[in-house]
Amino acid sequence: MTNAKTGAEALISTAVGAGIDICFANPGTTEMPLVNALDGVPGIRPILCLHENVATGAADGYARMAGKPAMTILHTGPGLANGLTNLHNARRAHSPLVNVIGDHASWHLDADAPLNSPIEQIAEAVSGFVKKSDGPDSLAADMVEAVAATKENGGQVATLIAPHNAQWSSLESDLPVAARQPSPSTFSALCVEASADALKTQKTAFYLGGLALSEPAFHLLGRIAATTGADLICETFYARMERGGDLPAPMKLPYFPEDALAMLGHYSKVISVGALPPVAFFAYPDTPSRLTSAEQDIVLAKPDEDVLGALEALADSFESLLEASSPSHILPDMPQGLLTAEALCAVLANLQPENAIVMDEGLTVSAPYHEASYGAHRFTQLQLTGGAIGMGPGAATGAALACPDRQVINLQADGSGAYSVQALWTQAREGLDVITVLLSNRSYHILNVELQRAGIEQPGSAAQKMASLDGPAIDWVSLAKGFGVPGIAVDTAEQFAEALNAALHVKGPYLIEVRMP
Amino acid sequence: MTNAKTGAEALISTAVGAGIDICFANPGTTEMPLVNALDGVPGIRPILCLHENVATGAADGYARMAGKPAMTILHTGPGLANGLTNLHNARRAHSPLVNVIGDHASWHLDADAPLNSPIEQIAEAVSGFVKKSDGPDSLAADMVEAVAATKENGGQVATLIAPHNAQWSSLESDLPVAARQPSPSTFSALCVEASADALKTQKTAFYLGGLALSEPAFHLLGRIAATTGADLICETFYARMERGGDLPAPMKLPYFPEDALAMLGHYSKVISVGALPPVAFFAYPDTPSRLTSAEQDIVLAKPDEDVLGALEALADSFESLLEASSPSHILPDMPQGLLTAEALCAVLANLQPENAIVMDEGLTVSAPYHEASYGAHRFTQLQLTGGAIGMGPGAATGAALACPDRQVINLQADGSGAYSVQALWTQAREGLDVITVLLSNRSYHILNVELQRAGIEQPGSAAQKMASLDGPAIDWVSLAKGFGVPGIAVDTAEQFAEALNAALHVKGPYLIEVRMP
Repeated sequence: MTNAKTGAEALISTAVGAGIDICFANPGTTEMPLVNALDGVPGIRPILCLHENVATGAADGYARMAGKPAMTILHTGPGLANGLTNLHNARRAHSPLVNVIGDHASWHLDADAPLNSPIEQIAEAVSGFVKKSDGPDSLAADMVEAVAATKENGGQVATLIAPHNAQWSSLESDLPVAARQPSPSTFSALCVEASADALKTQKTAFYLGGLALSEPAFHLLGRIAATTGADLICETFYARMERGGDLPAPMKLPYFPEDALAMLGHYSKVISVGALPPVAFFAYPDTPSRLTSAEQDIVLAKPDEDVLGALEALADSFESLLEASSPSHILPDMPQGLLTAEALCAVLANLQPENAIVMDEGLTVSAPYHEASYGAHRFTQLQLTGGAIGMGPGAATGAALACPDRQVINLQADGSGAYSVQALWTQAREGLDVITVLLSNRSYHILNVELQRAGIEQPGSAAQKMASLDGPAIDWVSLAKGFGVPGIAVDTAEQFAEALNAALHVKGPYLIEVRMP
Repeated sequence: MTNAKTGAEALISTAVGAGIDICFANPGTTEMPLVNALDGVPGIRPILCLHENVATGAADGYARMAGKPAMTILHTGPGLANGLTNLHNARRAHSPLVNVIGDHASWHLDADAPLNSPIEQIAEAVSGFVKKSDGPDSLAADMVEAVAATKENGGQVATLIAPHNAQWSSLESDLPVAARQPSPSTFSALCVEASADALKTQKTAFYLGGLALSEPAFHLLGRIAATTGADLICETFYARMERGGDLPAPMKLPYFPEDALAMLGHYSKVISVGALPPVAFFAYPDTPSRLTSAEQDIVLAKPDEDVLGALEALADSFESLLEASSPSHILPDMPQGLLTAEALCAVLANLQPENAIVMDEGLTVSAPYHEASYGAHRFTQLQLTGGAIGMGPGAATGAALACPDRQVINLQADGSGAYSVQALWTQAREGLDVITVLLSNRSYHILNVELQRAGIEQPGSAAQKMASLDGPAIDWVSLAKGFGVPGIAVDTAEQFAEALNAALHVKGPYLIEVRMP
């Protein structure tokens, strides 16, 4: 050994050098050298999460808002497995995220100790990059590769497996590690041309996801739409959209395929940008998987292509463009009385402050929010992307850490919120400005909707039991208190407005249990 | 179509026919035909869990106590992924358990809808059997195969993937499905002979796991030990052990390898029964993975062999056997004052009623419980088997459903308990007799121990932050209230004894937050 630096220290200092400044963690014995290195290397903030799916959800929320990768430290295969569903959501969102998974010492694997499991196999289910380091001297180079990989393919999850003995051993060499630039993304000039032709000659809609929902994209899209009359439609479950204020307001593609088909059927051409052509969330006996026809489809830029470059080229293909029309949306009236979905979405849209971040995992309850908030102040909306429920609490936590000067509002369905309720503790520990608007309808309401769609008008007792969250009803204010977050329950629109206004004027986390009729 | 029976109905009625009487579920859209079939087919009880890892943990606890497979219904790849770590624990426990995972309709997979993920790959990480049905007519036969598979290899996890369209479609034939018997397990006469020789001539210990910790095994082992002077040692983390009363009381193999080596070093031969030879839980720079030498090892019966048959053959190889010596253990004195680990374990051992089931995920805090409870009334102890924390709350739930006439006590560490706290809701909904003894030391204490073992006497702020559950302390009584379970916090041994006595005389779930100094 020529120096005392360990593999773990090399890994952490490489991460910091690559721009990573936060680490969401729930470590165990096989990650203790990494934890110790967090103390030895300045520049990275460790955030303890009480469940790995909070850690991975927070890393995703951080990445979506910061636009750069966050890191997780997870404990062996089971730690990774616990965080897998929010990594699935991150994968669908193209979020850059690097997991570091501690594994048993290499020579201990053969003993098949109780925690041993196929980490690579589990990681591959959600990661665009998986690598296991083979010793202390390779951890730094592998970390460089992993961070670079998070920026490829439009943003993806990278997983680095760090054997315990590689972490604790001293480096044998201390060679500088070369930085690595991800390969630049491109776009197709042919698709730009086809898009321009369609816009000039046919009834056309844009179908938008990914970076096509960013502010620079909207500045281009607003002018193209004003010039050509094209409509803007966004994905049903997008990763992040800039909304409100002066920005164009896309329609949202409806969730159920028959409604989506009806909307898309108005257009001769549908230009997908930052998104693949739309597909149904679930299959039903009588509806197709694909919601556009091959004749309708033009893909201007896939999520892993140069979305902004393609939009700029498209804008340049017009001789001149009109200015974007000023949005004319007005906010809904402030409602009174019972907290229906429409009422609570109207209250929120009216009261949310300038520059808020709204994490939306409201599912069936927040369905009216998209239209209700057309006229809201300028804000950012995040959504559950991969359908794996339990993303909101963690993602809101990560978003608040990425943007400490912005108010985060987590619009959270109750069934999904129960999945990741532990995130409240991290919000309390870190003093984060997150207001959880907990939408208590005491059911997995989508299941009732699906039973009706399947023609089951009178569900039996088993089906009722599976869809109901009553008996007992969850007392969310007590749950929040248990994790150190103050809260209040409200039953009317007026009470909700009062509670939300009060919470907006106080620093730190807060939970409002919105008791729906 | 010749009849109206759906694939889902065929699956559920086949499960009931194969002896499955309970189903732990968190279904989604792709499982609605199965949910509907639960109403159409009598004989199976659906239990809703608010997180899949509660469902899989409950299925494991049920299987360990009922000695037969329980079923789960989980929603696509993410639902399976959420339940993966307690399936890992179930795999390590050789618990028979069958997961039914709904998947997208077969023709919808190509669209790669948001919830699409590699289900088989995820399932293979924990399952001894994985199959995807190819249509409604194969679901019943595949279910027969899956249930039979749960009983093979000493008990294992089987996962059946049921495409949505296979569930909803009507059967084209209605042929009866042949029952399938798992192949019987065997043992080696040579290993019996080697064991008998060792017991007669050398200083020998038994190393016991699996069915070697059952009552019939102990009746044989007690007589063999009395006759030969052999010692009994149990696995550090066994799946289930019958304890107390007149049963022999094995020593527990210590957790840290140096302590385990010291214990095992006393013996010329170590006969593993229902267990593989002992290995270290984690590797350390200066200790071996394997805790016995090849010279010491005799494997009388692996977990997947005929453990009881081998022990009977071993007993028969002696001309005569003495009666088992009567255990002479006495209970520790009832403590007073601060709730140290020793004190709280002593209170519990003294007060736990005859025939209790103690689920032990107390980890560092419940370490003294093994010796403290040597003299307890006859009881059953379950333990975390695979090291993936968060098993206790779900497993206690399943155990209570398997044994409604027995008092379940979940001895639960706080860090691990926070992982699966949602299980309290199912305990409340089903009115289960589970007392959660929540061991609040407000830390992942093992991490502090490991930092010390690594020579880090003064952990830095990052390390302290990762190991501490303070700031804020979790208020467990509020959490329990939130999920509908009454509770109380106690600070002294006397208060704990009073609260435990009171809880034992009331039906339904209860939580006692044991606030350690």
